[in-house]
Amino acid sequence: MARIVQKFGGTSLANIEKINNAARLVAQAVGDGHEVAVVVSAMSGTTNQLAGWAEEISDNLDPCEYDVVVSAGEQITAGLMALAIQKLNIQAQSWLGWQLPIRTDLQHARAHIEKIETEAIAGSLAQGVVAVVPGFQGVDQDNRVATLGRGGSDASAVALAASIRADLCNIYTDVDGVYTSDPRIVAKARKLDKITYEEMLELSSLGAKVLQSRAAELAMRHRVVVQVLSTFHDLPGTLLVDEDSGVEQQIVSGIAFSRDDAKITLTNIPDQPGIAAGIFGPLSQSNINVDMIVQNASGDGASADLTFTVGKNDLESAISVIEGARSSLKYAELMSDDNVTKISVVGVGMRTHAGVAATMFETLAEKGINIQVISTSEIKVSVLIAKEYTELALRSLHTAYGLDSESSSR
Amino acid sequence: MARIVQKFGGTSLANIEKINNAARLVAQAVGDGHEVAVVVSAMSGTTNQLAGWAEEISDNLDPCEYDVVVSAGEQITAGLMALAIQKLNIQAQSWLGWQLPIRTDLQHARAHIEKIETEAIAGSLAQGVVAVVPGFQGVDQDNRVATLGRGGSDASAVALAASIRADLCNIYTDVDGVYTSDPRIVAKARKLDKITYEEMLELSSLGAKVLQSRAAELAMRHRVVVQVLSTFHDLPGTLLVDEDSGVEQQIVSGIAFSRDDAKITLTNIPDQPGIAAGIFGPLSQSNINVDMIVQNASGDGASADLTFTVGKNDLESAISVIEGARSSLKYAELMSDDNVTKISVVGVGMRTHAGVAATMFETLAEKGINIQVISTSEIKVSVLIAKEYTELALRSLHTAYGLDSESSSR
Repeated sequence: MARIVQKFGGTSLANIEKINNAARLVAQAVGDGHEVAVVVSAMSGTTNQLAGWAEEISDNLDPCEYDVVVSAGEQITAGLMALAIQKLNIQAQSWLGWQLPIRTDLQHARAHIEKIETEAIAGSLAQGVVAVVPGFQGVDQDNRVATLGRGGSDASAVALAASIRADLCNIYTDVDGVYTSDPRIVAKARKLDKITYEEMLELSSLGAKVLQSRAAELAMRHRVVVQVLSTFHDLPGTLLVDEDSGVEQQIVSGIAFSRDDAKITLTNIPDQPGIAAGIFGPLSQSNINVDMIVQNASGDGASADLTFTVGKNDLESAISVIEGARSSLKYAELMSDDNVTKISVVGVGMRTHAGVAATMFETLAEKGINIQVISTSEIKVSVLIAKEYTELALRSLHTAYGLDSESSSR
Repeated sequence: MARIVQKFGGTSLANIEKINNAARLVAQAVGDGHEVAVVVSAMSGTTNQLAGWAEEISDNLDPCEYDVVVSAGEQITAGLMALAIQKLNIQAQSWLGWQLPIRTDLQHARAHIEKIETEAIAGSLAQGVVAVVPGFQGVDQDNRVATLGRGGSDASAVALAASIRADLCNIYTDVDGVYTSDPRIVAKARKLDKITYEEMLELSSLGAKVLQSRAAELAMRHRVVVQVLSTFHDLPGTLLVDEDSGVEQQIVSGIAFSRDDAKITLTNIPDQPGIAAGIFGPLSQSNINVDMIVQNASGDGASADLTFTVGKNDLESAISVIEGARSSLKYAELMSDDNVTKISVVGVGMRTHAGVAATMFETLAEKGINIQVISTSEIKVSVLIAKEYTELALRSLHTAYGLDSESSSR
């Protein structure tokens, strides 16, 4: 007998038929003798609708009240899932964020889980009652509802699994697992049987949608055994594992992409100390994350061009922050471009294999794709390219790193 | 400066434009210097949708989980209303049922409010923060969400008003107040400026939809000053008042009707002691409320026909309960009819004026309308008639009791 967390995403709970289907997966695990806690997202579309209503009222929202509104979606599916499990003659009870409670910090709309009280739920699980917990929500120290930000239900599931020391955390979704790249674009993408926590974290952070990056980080930190698998096909998924757990290390495990970045270039900035701080300080104070940065000295050595990327949603505010500091920054021109894609190759094997970056640059050069910005970390290389080359770049790199499956069937 | 509760129904909150409109009514009261607590229903249609999903899963629902699902509707509007008030530069905070808390008994899906803790909310009101409270919900002694049954938001508002000793409880709805009869049927119906608690309670119980009967009961018990008025027209509504508060007593204040009843007749039951208990005991044990009852002795005096009404929703189960006891009840035939309407005339003036019932019977007889069952109380006379005569009966009685307005304009 094991203790299992089963997390269902919004597409797996999109209507009552699908909720009943998910409940059958819960019943199967209970029938196999396991203690089961279920974490649910909102029905697909619900969170967008609720957030849309709030944003229709104001574009400068009190995040505490925003959280009251958007957390309702997971409350609804938690109750419905408990009912659907009960219908299969299995005891089930919902535990809302404030009931467990799931304690968060005070950063509403993007809160972090600090602690999950498990005494009550553990007692209930031990009595054979399935616990159904709404993802995405918790309660802060002032007893107000707090949500974890988009995709936060994955983090809820992994945090719950860590807290109740679950043997396995199954993340049910609408794909069969983690792929070497997005199969909708790269037909030859292969499903991975295993992936290391570090690789999953990089892939998630770099645009792969299959698992939210904070969930990957929590899984890595607490060494939670996570499996990403399909709600709709009864197949093994992809297991997140330790690097030293015997998984055969590929040099590159996956290729992710993101269309959520935008590029800003400042030309002819004086090449002197303090200029970078003058730019990135105010951006950081405005809560704008800067990702890739590259600086090219000009011919005369006295000035330079600076290029960096920010989230596409932050582009407008980033521009206004910089233009507000124009007198001190003394740049010649500000250019922006949101018609870009960030492509990233990820693999723990890079640590010991040279040439991964070189292969990337050569492959893209062969196809005539210009690299605008480069950034690297221990286990990834990311490049920014013009958006129109996204598909070509993904497929070429997938082939170049030997990731193609033998058939293109899924 | 007064302390006011403002309650908005689902049609007053049906979309963001209407929520903003309701928020302006709140801002107006705050601008007038009042402390304001707001109670909200779910957006119209939401509760039906949530209940529909739950009922799609099972027709034998765990009411605890049902309550988790359906209470989400008021949570959503509470957050949205707080945001809409804030948008008008007025401080506002939502207080969910479990946050106040609003304590209920354990009868999930039809719970009663036992106590509302007011310390925190009173402090907040005193600081000029508008409190927004979702109607319909509370929390039971086990810390689980409980809902009050359909229309329960009116009861929430009146209970809150009683708890925080509000000077006035405004029930905003889609009609201008309490009418002498349903203006959609009786064009000459008049809006009442005042009505006694007792009359309002009778009218609500007998089918008038303008205020939920439990809310009228709570208002009467706690002497809460309630006004029923329109969200959409800036007009005075109808004030609920004490009988001795100087309101001019009309003999009849209003005529209500209900199409929610069904009639059962048992023929030739033996006219002997214990038979009534044999019929109504099992119905009561099955939680079926019996309303009107009439027994006609047959010619020989040894047997009688018994006719009574139950809620239309309970008709099937009532029939099966009675048929299950057929051997001991020894009736000849069971006949049922749900094609009936109950018409009730209500007025505290009846206590001192004879002839109200006689006027009713004469008026209906003149129009050739057969009275099937009669029941009376101190301040009302109800009759059951064939449904097809509903409009004719309402309009004739409205004229007969001198309730018609001079013009038929509203």
